[in-house]
Amino acid sequence: MSLDFQPNRNSRWQEKTYHIIFEADTFGGKLFDVVLLIAIFLSVMVVILESVKDLSTSYGQLFKQLEWAFTILFTTEYLLRIVIVNKPLRYIKSFFGIIDLISILPSIVGFFFVGAQSFMIIRAFRLLRIFRIFKLTKYLGEASQLSKALIASRNKITIFIGTVVIIVTILGALMYIIEPDESGFNNIPKGIYWAVVTLTTVGYGDIAPITPLGQIIASFIMILGYGIIAVPTGIVTSEMTKQSSSQKEDTVKDKCPSCNCPKAENEAHYCYKCGFNFKEKM
Amino acid sequence: MSLDFQPNRNSRWQEKTYHIIFEADTFGGKLFDVVLLIAIFLSVMVVILESVKDLSTSYGQLFKQLEWAFTILFTTEYLLRIVIVNKPLRYIKSFFGIIDLISILPSIVGFFFVGAQSFMIIRAFRLLRIFRIFKLTKYLGEASQLSKALIASRNKITIFIGTVVIIVTILGALMYIIEPDESGFNNIPKGIYWAVVTLTTVGYGDIAPITPLGQIIASFIMILGYGIIAVPTGIVTSEMTKQSSSQKEDTVKDKCPSCNCPKAENEAHYCYKCGFNFKEKM
Amino acid sequence: MSLDFQPNRNSRWQEKTYHIIFEADTFGGKLFDVVLLIAIFLSVMVVILESVKDLSTSYGQLFKQLEWAFTILFTTEYLLRIVIVNKPLRYIKSFFGIIDLISILPSIVGFFFVGAQSFMIIRAFRLLRIFRIFKLTKYLGEASQLSKALIASRNKITIFIGTVVIIVTILGALMYIIEPDESGFNNIPKGIYWAVVTLTTVGYGDIAPITPLGQIIASFIMILGYGIIAVPTGIVTSEMTKQSSSQKEDTVKDKCPSCNCPKAENEAHYCYKCGFNFKEKM
Amino acid sequence: MSLDFQPNRNSRWQEKTYHIIFEADTFGGKLFDVVLLIAIFLSVMVVILESVKDLSTSYGQLFKQLEWAFTILFTTEYLLRIVIVNKPLRYIKSFFGIIDLISILPSIVGFFFVGAQSFMIIRAFRLLRIFRIFKLTKYLGEASQLSKALIASRNKITIFIGTVVIIVTILGALMYIIEPDESGFNNIPKGIYWAVVTLTTVGYGDIAPITPLGQIIASFIMILGYGIIAVPTGIVTSEMTKQSSSQKEDTVKDKCPSCNCPKAENEAHYCYKCGFNFKEKM
Repeated sequence: MSLDFQPNRNSRWQEKTYHIIFEADTFGGKLFDVVLLIAIFLSVMVVILESVKDLSTSYGQLFKQLEWAFTILFTTEYLLRIVIVNKPLRYIKSFFGIIDLISILPSIVGFFFVGAQSFMIIRAFRLLRIFRIFKLTKYLGEASQLSKALIASRNKITIFIGTVVIIVTILGALMYIIEPDESGFNNIPKGIYWAVVTLTTVGYGDIAPITPLGQIIASFIMILGYGIIAVPTGIVTSEMTKQSSSQKEDTVKDKCPSCNCPKAENEAHYCYKCGFNFKEKM
Repeated sequence: MSLDFQPNRNSRWQEKTYHIIFEADTFGGKLFDVVLLIAIFLSVMVVILESVKDLSTSYGQLFKQLEWAFTILFTTEYLLRIVIVNKPLRYIKSFFGIIDLISILPSIVGFFFVGAQSFMIIRAFRLLRIFRIFKLTKYLGEASQLSKALIASRNKITIFIGTVVIIVTILGALMYIIEPDESGFNNIPKGIYWAVVTLTTVGYGDIAPITPLGQIIASFIMILGYGIIAVPTGIVTSEMTKQSSSQKEDTVKDKCPSCNCPKAENEAHYCYKCGFNFKEKM
Repeated sequence: MSLDFQPNRNSRWQEKTYHIIFEADTFGGKLFDVVLLIAIFLSVMVVILESVKDLSTSYGQLFKQLEWAFTILFTTEYLLRIVIVNKPLRYIKSFFGIIDLISILPSIVGFFFVGAQSFMIIRAFRLLRIFRIFKLTKYLGEASQLSKALIASRNKITIFIGTVVIIVTILGALMYIIEPDESGFNNIPKGIYWAVVTLTTVGYGDIAPITPLGQIIASFIMILGYGIIAVPTGIVTSEMTKQSSSQKEDTVKDKCPSCNCPKAENEAHYCYKCGFNFKEKM
Repeated sequence: MSLDFQPNRNSRWQEKTYHIIFEADTFGGKLFDVVLLIAIFLSVMVVILESVKDLSTSYGQLFKQLEWAFTILFTTEYLLRIVIVNKPLRYIKSFFGIIDLISILPSIVGFFFVGAQSFMIIRAFRLLRIFRIFKLTKYLGEASQLSKALIASRNKITIFIGTVVIIVTILGALMYIIEPDESGFNNIPKGIYWAVVTLTTVGYGDIAPITPLGQIIASFIMILGYGIIAVPTGIVTSEMTKQSSSQKEDTVKDKCPSCNCPKAENEAHYCYKCGFNFKEKM
C-alpha cells in the first residue's frame, strides 16, 4: 500500500499533512482514516440508495447534493495527496492512486452523461483502506497468509480453471445439440452458461433440461461437479496447511548464539551453518 | 454455561433445588433437564404448528392453552432460578438468563399485540441446553474444539467476509448497470442480493441475467465463487488439522528421566534411546 | 457382511451351494454374484421404467412378467440362503438378510394393493453387494477408512447438525414473521424448509424473500451458510488427514525381533516394550 | 502427450517439420504451437457464434467459409503429422491423434447432414495442447500432482459415487411415491434426477416438493447432502496434503557422511549432530 511513500519535504505543512493523510500511526492519522472511511461508506450508501426508484423520487435532490459534497471532498483529498507526496507520479500510478481517481471521475462525467453515477460504486474499492488502519495489528499478517496461499497455488488454479473452461464449452455444446429450444438451450453460449451454472452448483433453473437424455447427462455433470468442487478446496486447504505448519517451524527454533541463524533442532549439538558447538560453550 | 454458579445457601430447599435445576450430575438434576428439554421442544412445536393455518383453525383453542401452560411453567422455572442462585443478577445477565427471559416475554406481550406469539420461536435457543445434559461426556470437548478452530481463524474469516462484501457490492452495481429492469435488477440492492445468491452458489433464479454480457459476467462470478468457497473451508480445515495434531502432541509423551528424550508411548517400559527401565526405578 | 457365516454341514450339496452363494472366492461363487448383481440391476431398472407412464402403457404386460420372474428368482435365492446357512436366524436378522426379505415383499403385497410395486426400488440396496465381489481387493479397506473417518467425527457432526437444526428453526420463524404470504412463507414449517434450502446452498427458488428486509436477512444467512458449509468439510478432512498419517506411521515401523512390537523409530537403540538392545545383538 | 514420438528420418524436410510441429523447444516449434492454438480457439469461437441465430442469419456465409478454411488447415496439419512421424499408426491411435481426427470429421459429415457442425465443438479438446507449450515449465508438474492426487483417491471416489447412485435411486423412488404428479415427480427417473439436483446442491427448482411430508424428507436429504459434499473434498484434500508433504520429504535432506543423520538443509556447512564440516572434507 502507500507505506513506501515519503513526504514531500519542501515545506513543513506538507510533511505534517503527509503524516495525517498517508499514515495511521499518530492520533491525527488514525482519525483522518476513520473519518475518510465513514465518508466513503456514506457515499457508497448514497449511490446504492439512489438506484432505488422510490427513494430517488422522494430524495433525489438530497442525493445529488450529497454526491457533489462527497465528490468535492474526495477531489480535495486526491489533490492534497498529490501535493504532499514526494513522488506524485508514483502515487498516481499506484493501486490506490488509480482507485482514488476513478472514484471521483463518474460524478464529473455524470454531469454530461446520465447514468454514469452508478459507476461511482467503484468507490467501494476504497473501503479496502480499512485494512490500512489496522496495519500494525495482526490483520495484515493474516491477509498476506491468505494471499500467499492463493499465490502459491496459482499454477494449479490456472490449470484447473483452464480445464473447467474446456469442459463447460464441450458440455454446453452437447446440451445445445440434445435439448430442444423450448428448454432454453437456444444456442451454444446459452449452453455454456447453463453448464457453468450447473457445474458450480449455483443452479438458477432459468435454463434446465427437459428431455430424458438431457436430464441424464445433466445428472452426470452434477455428480462430476461434485468431485470438481473438491479440487480448488483441496488446493487451497493443502496450501494453507503447509503454510501454517511451516510457520510453526519458523517460530519453534532457537537461534545459534554465534551466527544467529536458527538451530536445526533445539537439541542440535552443532550449528549447521558455522559449526558452533552449543554444548561446549554454554 | 451455568456451571460457574453457586447455590444460594440461605436455606436448605434452595440448595437442594439448585442441584436439581442448575446441575445435571444427580439423578434428579438429569431428570429435570430431560423433562425441561421435552417441554421446550413441545412448546417450540406448538409455535411451529400454530403458524400453519389449517391447524390453527382446527386446534387454535388447544394451542392457546398449551402456550399458556408452557409460559406459566417457564416463568415459574425462571423465577425459581433467580431465587435459588447466589448471584441472581449474574444469572439474569448470562446468555441463558437472557434467553430464558426472552422465551417467556412474547406470550405476555402477545396478550396485547397479535402476532407476537411467533417470537416465541426464540425458545428454540433453549434447546442448546441439550449439550448441558451431556456435559460430563466428550461432547463438550468436541464443541469447544469446533469453536476453538472458529475463534482461531476469526481474523482470517473477518478479512474474508469484508472482501466478499466489497466484491458483491461492486458486482451487484455492475449487473444493475448492464442488465435491463425486466431481468429483476431493478436497483443496486437487488443486484447485491443477486451477487450474494450467486457467489454463495445458492442460486434461487428469482433474479437471473438475460443479456449475453450479463450472462458472461455472471459466469465469471460463478467460477470466481467456486474458488472463493474454497477459502473458508481451507481456513477452518487447516485450523482443525493444526488443532488435532497439536492436541495429539500435547497429550502424548512423558520424558525419559535418564536421557530426557520423549518416551515412545506413555506406557513404554524402556527408553528407546538409552534403554532406561521406567518400571524398575520409579 | 456375510463373511462370518458358516455352511450348514448336514449334507454335501448344502456346503457346495454355500460356497457358490455366500462366497466370492471360487469361480462359481464369483459367477453367481455377478449374475445376481445383473438380475438385481435389471429388476431395479424394470421398477424405474415401469413408473414412466408412456412405457408402462406400452410394455405394462412385459414389466409385470419380468417383475414376477425376478420376484420368484429372489425368493428362491432367499429360501436357499436360509436352508444352506448354519445359523438361519442370524442371516435373517443380518443387514443383508433384512434387505433381501424386503426386496421380495412388495411384489407379493402389490398383489393386493396397487402402488406397492414402487417400494420394490428398495432392491437397489442389494446393489451394495457389488462391494462383496471385490472383497479380497483393496476396495473394502478404502470403504472402511471412509466410514472410520465418519465414525470418528460422529460427535462433532452430531453437535454440528444439532446447531444447524436450531439455527434453521429460528431463521425460518424470523422469515415467516418478516415476509408476506405472497413470497411463499405461509407458515413456520415453510420458513424452516426455506432456511434449509438456503443454508445448504441448494436454493430452489420456489420460496424466495421479496421484501428488502427479507432479502437483507437472506443475504446474511447465505454468507453464514458459506462459513457453515466449511465446518463438516473441515471435520471430515482433518479426520481423514489424521487417519492417513497414522496409517503411514503404521506401515513405516520395523519390528522388534524379540517381542515383535513396532520400534519407536527405525533408529531406536532399545525396544521400548522389552528393552531389547537392537545394536548389540544384530 | 506426443513427447514419445520420433521423427520419420527418411528425408531431411520430414525431420525439420517434425521439430516444428511436434515439439515446442525451438522458436519455430513454439511459434507453430501458438499459431495453431489461436486457429483452434478461433475455430471454436466460429462454431459457438454460428449457433446464435441472429449472428448465423447475418454472417452465415462468412462462418461457413471460415469453417472450411479451418477444416482445410487442420486436415493439412493432420496429414502432415502422419507423414512426418516415424510411427504413424501410434500417433493416429494416441489421445491427440483421435481428437485431431474427430476435429475435422464433422465439417465433412456436415456436408451431407445438417446439424453435424455443432459437433465441431469437439475441437475445444485440442485446446488442451496449451499445456504442451509450457511443457518445460512447472505447469506439467502441477498438473501431474493434481491427477496423481485424483488417481490415488480413485478407489475412494468409486465407492463414494457408487453409494451416491444407490442413495439417489432410493430417494428418487421415495419422493415419487410421496409427491403428487403436480410437483413434477411424474416418474422415478424424474425423482432420481431431482435427488441428484438436490444432493449436489444445484437446486434448479424445476421440480420441488410441495407436500409437507415431501418437504420434510427433502430437508433431510439436503442436510445429508451437506455432509456428503464434505467427503470428496476430504478425500482429495487429504490426498493432496499427503502428496505435498511426501514431496517435501523426497526433495529435502542429504545425509551426513560421518554420522549418517540427515543434514539440516542441503546447503548446511556443518552436521548439527556431530559437527562434521561438509565443505572441508568433500
